[in-house]
Amino acid sequence: MTTASGHTSAILASRVKGTAVYNSAGDKIGHVEDVVLDKQSDHIMFAALGFGGVLGMGEKYYPVPWSVLDYSPDKGGYVVPMSKQTLEKAPAYSMDDLTKNDGSFGDIREKSYTYYNVKRDW
Amino acid sequence: MTTASGHTSAILASRVKGTAVYNSAGDKIGHVEDVVLDKQSDHIMFAALGFGGVLGMGEKYYPVPWSVLDYSPDKGGYVVPMSKQTLEKAPAYSMDDLTKNDGSFGDIREKSYTYYNVKRDW
Repeated sequence: MTTASGHTSAILASRVKGTAVYNSAGDKIGHVEDVVLDKQSDHIMFAALGFGGVLGMGEKYYPVPWSVLDYSPDKGGYVVPMSKQTLEKAPAYSMDDLTKNDGSFGDIREKSYTYYNVKRDW
Repeated sequence: MTTASGHTSAILASRVKGTAVYNSAGDKIGHVEDVVLDKQSDHIMFAALGFGGVLGMGEKYYPVPWSVLDYSPDKGGYVVPMSKQTLEKAPAYSMDDLTKNDGSFGDIREKSYTYYNVKRDW
């Protein structure tokens, strides 16, 4: 994905955090718990989605490639264009695992981008 | 910049916000007010630094390419390897301007990356 000089997609990280997340059926499934940034590549690694109450996964968070989230002005939240079933089976980790940076991180990233079928050129 | 599979540079956006920022002389010059994300390119556009009290710029924020910030565990903050004078002359905008997405954004990004001499391949 490339940006035009006059693109229209800047957003403050602090505004993303806490934003509601919906599935393809339009059901609210959770929220953006935080955004994981990659200092080394300058890329947004992924959004960490919390489905807690909804999917009953407790403290597990779902790393979803940033590009998968579509903002819906109507809903005032992000839509992940997948079924509840697909999301329930998605890779999920504790927040510590998502950010512990012990070298296992590359694996988590790989699993996430593979599961959501997102091409990664970095 | 590319990432190795097992890199060690993941950081939560919420942990970046509010972190202290130092100049090359080791003086604390401000803090990270927020991180501006680029939805379209999946890149971290830049950190918006607030130098408020220090440089007396009031509500102006300094868009600094993410890669310019070096985290210093000793200081517990980010170092921008530039003099106070260089930073005082840097491009600065209101937070509204930094995120208003009216097409002028490409210009702000260009000015920032040019001023800090950061190559941008996106």
